[in-house]
Amino acid sequence: MVDGRTSTAIYVGRFQPFHLGHLYAVRHALKEVRRLIIVIGSSQRSYEPRHPFTLGERMEMIRLATEEAHIPPSRFIMVPVPDVEIHPTWVSLVEYSCPSFDMAFTNEPLTTRLLKEAGYRVVAVPLQERNDLSGTSIRERMSRGMPWEHLVPRSVASYIKKVHGPERIREIASLTKNP
Amino acid sequence: MVDGRTSTAIYVGRFQPFHLGHLYAVRHALKEVRRLIIVIGSSQRSYEPRHPFTLGERMEMIRLATEEAHIPPSRFIMVPVPDVEIHPTWVSLVEYSCPSFDMAFTNEPLTTRLLKEAGYRVVAVPLQERNDLSGTSIRERMSRGMPWEHLVPRSVASYIKKVHGPERIREIASLTKNP
Amino acid sequence: MVDGRTSTAIYVGRFQPFHLGHLYAVRHALKEVRRLIIVIGSSQRSYEPRHPFTLGERMEMIRLATEEAHIPPSRFIMVPVPDVEIHPTWVSLVEYSCPSFDMAFTNEPLTTRLLKEAGYRVVAVPLQERNDLSGTSIRERMSRGMPWEHLVPRSVASYIKKVHGPERIREIASLTKNP
Amino acid sequence: MVDGRTSTAIYVGRFQPFHLGHLYAVRHALKEVRRLIIVIGSSQRSYEPRHPFTLGERMEMIRLATEEAHIPPSRFIMVPVPDVEIHPTWVSLVEYSCPSFDMAFTNEPLTTRLLKEAGYRVVAVPLQERNDLSGTSIRERMSRGMPWEHLVPRSVASYIKKVHGPERIREIASLTKNP
Amino acid sequence: MVDGRTSTAIYVGRFQPFHLGHLYAVRHALKEVRRLIIVIGSSQRSYEPRHPFTLGERMEMIRLATEEAHIPPSRFIMVPVPDVEIHPTWVSLVEYSCPSFDMAFTNEPLTTRLLKEAGYRVVAVPLQERNDLSGTSIRERMSRGMPWEHLVPRSVASYIKKVHGPERIREIASLTKNP
Amino acid sequence: MVDGRTSTAIYVGRFQPFHLGHLYAVRHALKEVRRLIIVIGSSQRSYEPRHPFTLGERMEMIRLATEEAHIPPSRFIMVPVPDVEIHPTWVSLVEYSCPSFDMAFTNEPLTTRLLKEAGYRVVAVPLQERNDLSGTSIRERMSRGMPWEHLVPRSVASYIKKVHGPERIREIASLTKNP
Repeated sequence: MVDGRTSTAIYVGRFQPFHLGHLYAVRHALKEVRRLIIVIGSSQRSYEPRHPFTLGERMEMIRLATEEAHIPPSRFIMVPVPDVEIHPTWVSLVEYSCPSFDMAFTNEPLTTRLLKEAGYRVVAVPLQERNDLSGTSIRERMSRGMPWEHLVPRSVASYIKKVHGPERIREIASLTKNP
Repeated sequence: MVDGRTSTAIYVGRFQPFHLGHLYAVRHALKEVRRLIIVIGSSQRSYEPRHPFTLGERMEMIRLATEEAHIPPSRFIMVPVPDVEIHPTWVSLVEYSCPSFDMAFTNEPLTTRLLKEAGYRVVAVPLQERNDLSGTSIRERMSRGMPWEHLVPRSVASYIKKVHGPERIREIASLTKNP
Repeated sequence: MVDGRTSTAIYVGRFQPFHLGHLYAVRHALKEVRRLIIVIGSSQRSYEPRHPFTLGERMEMIRLATEEAHIPPSRFIMVPVPDVEIHPTWVSLVEYSCPSFDMAFTNEPLTTRLLKEAGYRVVAVPLQERNDLSGTSIRERMSRGMPWEHLVPRSVASYIKKVHGPERIREIASLTKNP
Repeated sequence: MVDGRTSTAIYVGRFQPFHLGHLYAVRHALKEVRRLIIVIGSSQRSYEPRHPFTLGERMEMIRLATEEAHIPPSRFIMVPVPDVEIHPTWVSLVEYSCPSFDMAFTNEPLTTRLLKEAGYRVVAVPLQERNDLSGTSIRERMSRGMPWEHLVPRSVASYIKKVHGPERIREIASLTKNP
Repeated sequence: MVDGRTSTAIYVGRFQPFHLGHLYAVRHALKEVRRLIIVIGSSQRSYEPRHPFTLGERMEMIRLATEEAHIPPSRFIMVPVPDVEIHPTWVSLVEYSCPSFDMAFTNEPLTTRLLKEAGYRVVAVPLQERNDLSGTSIRERMSRGMPWEHLVPRSVASYIKKVHGPERIREIASLTKNP
Repeated sequence: MVDGRTSTAIYVGRFQPFHLGHLYAVRHALKEVRRLIIVIGSSQRSYEPRHPFTLGERMEMIRLATEEAHIPPSRFIMVPVPDVEIHPTWVSLVEYSCPSFDMAFTNEPLTTRLLKEAGYRVVAVPLQERNDLSGTSIRERMSRGMPWEHLVPRSVASYIKKVHGPERIREIASLTKNP
């Protein structure tokens, strides 16, 4: 445990898609705290090049990945949080949406800053070695028809294929809704 | 099982607060389907007479109540859904926010109608005998200082006291934010 | 013609539903101006006691009623305008949404005031004698199971029955979406 | 001074209209702190029975009243803050919108609670004896044609007459925008 | 007729501005279906480089172009639909806003995908030969001072000149509202 | 005075940050009119590369700069105005938010156009010689670690350092909230 009194932490990501780096971070965080709140950020966005998957699809990916990894479902909950236009109010929206928490895991600088300014302790997740273990890299691989399956949990790879994720990403790569 | 192919259902409520009738409905639904998505409706509302609790508080109540009742956390997830101004688009927001589902449990007539118009099978939850087992009745009891603890799971009663729920309800009973 | 230079007017209503009083007002206005813009106000509201019908349903009612009354479709267009939170910006939203217009027909006091403050000439529509020729009265009749068909154009009555309007109004009369 | 370190406070109101009780509160607060931020709440609402005046009109009333009362304009600024749907995020919107502040003056219970939960010291403004010194009472007097001028600063009374405030209140008393 | 039972279709575009390619598509669609709903997408956008014209201006262009082309106004209506942040709810907003329809005409891939996922038959409009018959090309020509009038109906060209369209496009080409 | 009857003008800017060019413009405008309304545009944006500062921070900068320059606080007020999606309704939002005004100062072409289309006289502020006296240039200097202090009033430079402005700009330069 990071701290004897620490029982609950948030872990913030967009999970477009949920990949092995995210799974590593969840495991790492659960060594430190008893319960984890996985905050699904930019929850309102989908069918865009950087945000291809719906909220429901991302929730299903997290469920499948944690089940495959034998992470007990009693140890975490998922909470979607949409973007807000007035950025400094984002932390209070997270506080509204989540059961109370003591600290945060994230490697993202602005999220770190906003949470620290609101008084939270923020801990970085140790990065993994592979450069390509990022949402950006995986979406680009899908978009170019390169292999991507080895970068996500097996069950997530199957699910992404079932919902035709790579095709969707290719379709929206260069398009807007109404030309 | 209601139907051999049915694996996932939604159960829609506001859970202001989560009471024994809701717990009964969850148990009942889990006899029929393998997995349940508990849709927390009007997720954006709180600190109002009919909507006293925040989203995070309602998620915590559901977690505590299901843990106390030994309902396996692998059998359900919670998904918040805010109100929408254009009501007939509400079902598509639920579809966006949830992993895919086959049917719905609810006793609420308008939710029933909107889901049926969108093609879903909707099953009513058998009502319990006690008249006072409703959010309205429980909030009114809190507001008047009458006993309410016996109408919610024990762990939920403790939690509501910890967040000073009855005091909050009394404060907001006759008030607007800026007089 | 009210005025030699006047070619286009707006006529503002909610049309919940479109009734014979509305039809009378359209006919009256088309005697005065060459072209009419029928502004469908509160366009975003439906499935509520005072706003039962969707925007598409209201557009269809207007199309059916004007066709039945042999009003040439070249003489008018329909433009939906949603409510705005900052009321004095409503006129500029109407101006954004409509081809340019010179004057307005309405009997509603606040609409009249906002349009006059923005510099428009506003003309009242002569009222008809029948007291029950109002949306409020018609919705109440539907809600109570009393006859209402004689208060709307014949084609509108058929259409309302086809979409089960009275049943919808009865269902939502005393209900909110998530109890 | 309430506290040696206290330099800036907020004072929250809707100011529909700005009356002698508000002026008294501003004077009182300025005895305690060096600078005051007058937060104009529900800034987006107007042309409604409980919210008749626009934001610009309320700003002008405060400017006129403080000028008439010889309150130095270097001692205060005005900051509009609209309502938010997720109430517990309101305090962070105030923090976003205002220069930094140390404490708050208000008599309103829910504002008090939200600010206290966010860690601010909240001080009640001593109430004045006259029962009718409230926005509700003044709007009702305007609506009924009773005298109201003695309840607001002289310059505010002139201004309200200039913008035809009582007429506006009577017009909107029983009306919605689109009948 | 595409299909004996097909009576009403939607045709989706942004019409920035309405050009000869759009007119061709409307004619083509009206050979297949009895009634057409022209959905004016991104209805809320204007005064931006890719979205120069207001909703009212686009409605007027469509009216003028169809009148010039002798397309009977009884065969179509226009329905504005704004963008939505949660893309998969867009189809249900179209359904809310339009009289009921059976199929859709569009060449746009994402609109096609969303409508197909919602169960609609989508038919592509045969493309015309001229490469420059696109909104993008026409706006660029206006922006550079090149001839564009031959790419839109004659009445639309006159109207665009009357509202100083090319000047507006040049002004907003490299600008934001508040520098 | 520009015009004998002119008493109040608006001056529109984003003030990211408030610099010597803005101060010059305020002084210039106050030679022409009795009272100035400083409209803080894009009031809702912050923690973005082109919009680093919060509304409260921008209000504080204006207060400090005018105090340092001995501009009497009785001569101006500050009014925040957020962006609107439907651009042509922006002027009516300014009218809603401000005490009544007669004319506008701005050098920005689109603001000029929208205000002129609404009937206001718009006067350009004489530009100063220094090329680097712009928000864009100052933010870029902060971002690159180049000197910027000489381009803003002394008190504003101190304040920006106190809130760690340059560090914030560097952090958000290449980042989004949730990677």
